[in-house]
Amino acid sequence: MIRLDTREAGFAAGFEALLDSARETTARVDAAVGEIIGAVKRDGDAALLDLTARFDGWQPADAGALRVTAAEIDAATAGIEPSLMAALDLAATRIERFHQAQRPRDLELPDPAGLTLGMRWNALDAVGLYVPGGKAAYPSSVLMNALPARVAGVGRIAMVVPTPGGQLNPLVLAAARRAGVTEVYRIGGAQAVAALAWGTASIAPVDRVVGPGNAYVAEAKRQVFGRVGIDSIAGPSEVVILADASNDPRHVATDLLAQAEHDESAQAILVTDDAGFAAAVAAAVEAELGTLSRGAIAGESWKRHGAVILVRDWTEAYRLTNRLAPEHLQLMLPDPRAALAEVRHAGAAFLGRYCPEAIGDYVAGPNHVLPTGRTARFASGLSIYDFLKRTTWVEATAAGLNAIGPAAVALAEAEGLQAHGRSVALRLG
Amino acid sequence: MIRLDTREAGFAAGFEALLDSARETTARVDAAVGEIIGAVKRDGDAALLDLTARFDGWQPADAGALRVTAAEIDAATAGIEPSLMAALDLAATRIERFHQAQRPRDLELPDPAGLTLGMRWNALDAVGLYVPGGKAAYPSSVLMNALPARVAGVGRIAMVVPTPGGQLNPLVLAAARRAGVTEVYRIGGAQAVAALAWGTASIAPVDRVVGPGNAYVAEAKRQVFGRVGIDSIAGPSEVVILADASNDPRHVATDLLAQAEHDESAQAILVTDDAGFAAAVAAAVEAELGTLSRGAIAGESWKRHGAVILVRDWTEAYRLTNRLAPEHLQLMLPDPRAALAEVRHAGAAFLGRYCPEAIGDYVAGPNHVLPTGRTARFASGLSIYDFLKRTTWVEATAAGLNAIGPAAVALAEAEGLQAHGRSVALRLG
Repeated sequence: MIRLDTREAGFAAGFEALLDSARETTARVDAAVGEIIGAVKRDGDAALLDLTARFDGWQPADAGALRVTAAEIDAATAGIEPSLMAALDLAATRIERFHQAQRPRDLELPDPAGLTLGMRWNALDAVGLYVPGGKAAYPSSVLMNALPARVAGVGRIAMVVPTPGGQLNPLVLAAARRAGVTEVYRIGGAQAVAALAWGTASIAPVDRVVGPGNAYVAEAKRQVFGRVGIDSIAGPSEVVILADASNDPRHVATDLLAQAEHDESAQAILVTDDAGFAAAVAAAVEAELGTLSRGAIAGESWKRHGAVILVRDWTEAYRLTNRLAPEHLQLMLPDPRAALAEVRHAGAAFLGRYCPEAIGDYVAGPNHVLPTGRTARFASGLSIYDFLKRTTWVEATAAGLNAIGPAAVALAEAEGLQAHGRSVALRLG
Repeated sequence: MIRLDTREAGFAAGFEALLDSARETTARVDAAVGEIIGAVKRDGDAALLDLTARFDGWQPADAGALRVTAAEIDAATAGIEPSLMAALDLAATRIERFHQAQRPRDLELPDPAGLTLGMRWNALDAVGLYVPGGKAAYPSSVLMNALPARVAGVGRIAMVVPTPGGQLNPLVLAAARRAGVTEVYRIGGAQAVAALAWGTASIAPVDRVVGPGNAYVAEAKRQVFGRVGIDSIAGPSEVVILADASNDPRHVATDLLAQAEHDESAQAILVTDDAGFAAAVAAAVEAELGTLSRGAIAGESWKRHGAVILVRDWTEAYRLTNRLAPEHLQLMLPDPRAALAEVRHAGAAFLGRYCPEAIGDYVAGPNHVLPTGRTARFASGLSIYDFLKRTTWVEATAAGLNAIGPAAVALAEAEGLQAHGRSVALRLG
């Protein structure tokens, strides 16, 4: 764990090092992924059958066997505890409600020159959702990726999930059904991304691919970008917690560890103005670590990337927060709304001492797919906007064109684009 | 020029071929660009001086000489015709007004469970704008890229423009000044993109890089993506015109040629329900071609990529338009608003016979940076949204957490994330 103090001489250098520290080395898999995508483009379903046998360790009988049937989903989800289904439904309902509130309005602007200008939002026709297989298959992630698409009005939501050994995760299927996923395929890896982007005889192509995955999936998304849209490639998760000494050190420690338990590359940072509180939290972290099933992972993250930053005052803390531009930000301060007003760069903020970040992972309503690694400076969390796009429009009458057309002709001629100018000039009266 | 008729047997295959036709082969410049970016990261301004001497054919005296001064802009713009300045100002004023209307509102949602959920929009701190040098330096493009950033509230807009032989384009500088560009540097190529993304001693880094450029610039944007945001990589321009026989064939022909004159890879497509009108437009295209200064370019584009599609009725035309998802769409039909309602996928639409696409390139108000190559299925034109990002927030009280916290605990435990569950459970009362 890194300790920094803004009053100490080495602070600036230490903070810059923290900002620049790489927490992940991505394997170079460009060439392997390029071959897989090429095979799926060329051989379609046959390539999917081959690659699934090779990478997922089971042999689908035919292309039809790649699709998970409604009966299979019924069977797999029948045994889920009712209380767990209720929790999933509460989460889904709240996520839907928040994303519904994001819906933007179409524009129609009458114009002083006599034209009318407008902008219309339309949903994408079809979206592909990648869901990692095995242990990393998180039902909450299915809700967070699929529901904004559903709320946006996307008609087709095709989910792909690798099933190593043929095993399906019941809660992931329940989440998919609750979120309105229209098709589920038991494929994964770069081949699944290629199938979604290019289509095969049995899988129709989509317009955008979203969802987390390993290095192969991330590289495949990079390579199909342009053919389809993609979401941003998420890095390791992170939290910054601004907390004063009035907080319970154990609460803050568990919040830090909730971040750290994701994986060894995760980063948890405490910013406080009280050295005694900082020490109490650090001690509580050590005490909790031994009691956690994922304590080894959380401990490694805390040791390698954790940080405690001692500040003179909260103004200084807000300035550092804007430099860090964290994915998650907890504001455990007496007036968290005033603090939020000072923060320009953060993916998601959690206000007050009763607002641990984990409620945002599951049930609060805002999306948990958020910009990582300081990209909150320019990027946003997943939202309804990721599944909508805009068409602007212009309506001109003869009088409207007469009013603004001559300026267009002048600029077109200055740019040497004669036909542009002429297409306007011919219509002037 | 390709002729298709929906009544003919080969139509489906011909239309698929039109959809799949690649209009551009991008040179592979990954390695060269990687070296240039590495040099700028390592050597900063010294690399910029070297690379500018090597690629732009002039030797800056020092890093200070890379910045264009206010006095230089005064001198360069002093000789511009007042009428041209007025045209530029009309364009800027209209673009500002349309983008101002796009401003989204912050959300604050009281919640049945007693929490408050919100979403805040903030502008990026700093944006870099790439402007190509020489003949391809279009002042309209400076307005279209810089004004949305300015309207969004971006504080720093740093423009880079290569000046082969040291020459500055006066109208480009005038546009930069009018659009609120805060800094102008006479650098270009991959080195300029690297300087914007990573910063040097004399150029502060930005958060997002936008603007058109050649293959080196496009590849450099790809390589710095993640460090900074980028805009989409534009392909060759295109227009689809839906026109009935009541239109003047010469108007439609000039509209097609305004697209074709951009470059040989541009694509202009007419869709009509009248064979005689189609022939008249094709004849008018041939007649106009000989009278255009860029006739050779436009002729090549029309010959290689132009198309005339004859349809049975307009419903069929709308369906084909949605498949083509064109960058620009002209609706020269009796009820263009009804037609627009049928189109889900297009970058920008132009309604009526007095609305040539060229007014959208310059003065209408909506942005002329638009999704090309069928990407309007999932992408949108440049807008204020490209320069804003969102922070979602959650505010919880003890009662609010008690209401939804248990569901979060259940889901966290189902996902095996114990510290997540504990961070919530510890606070339940």
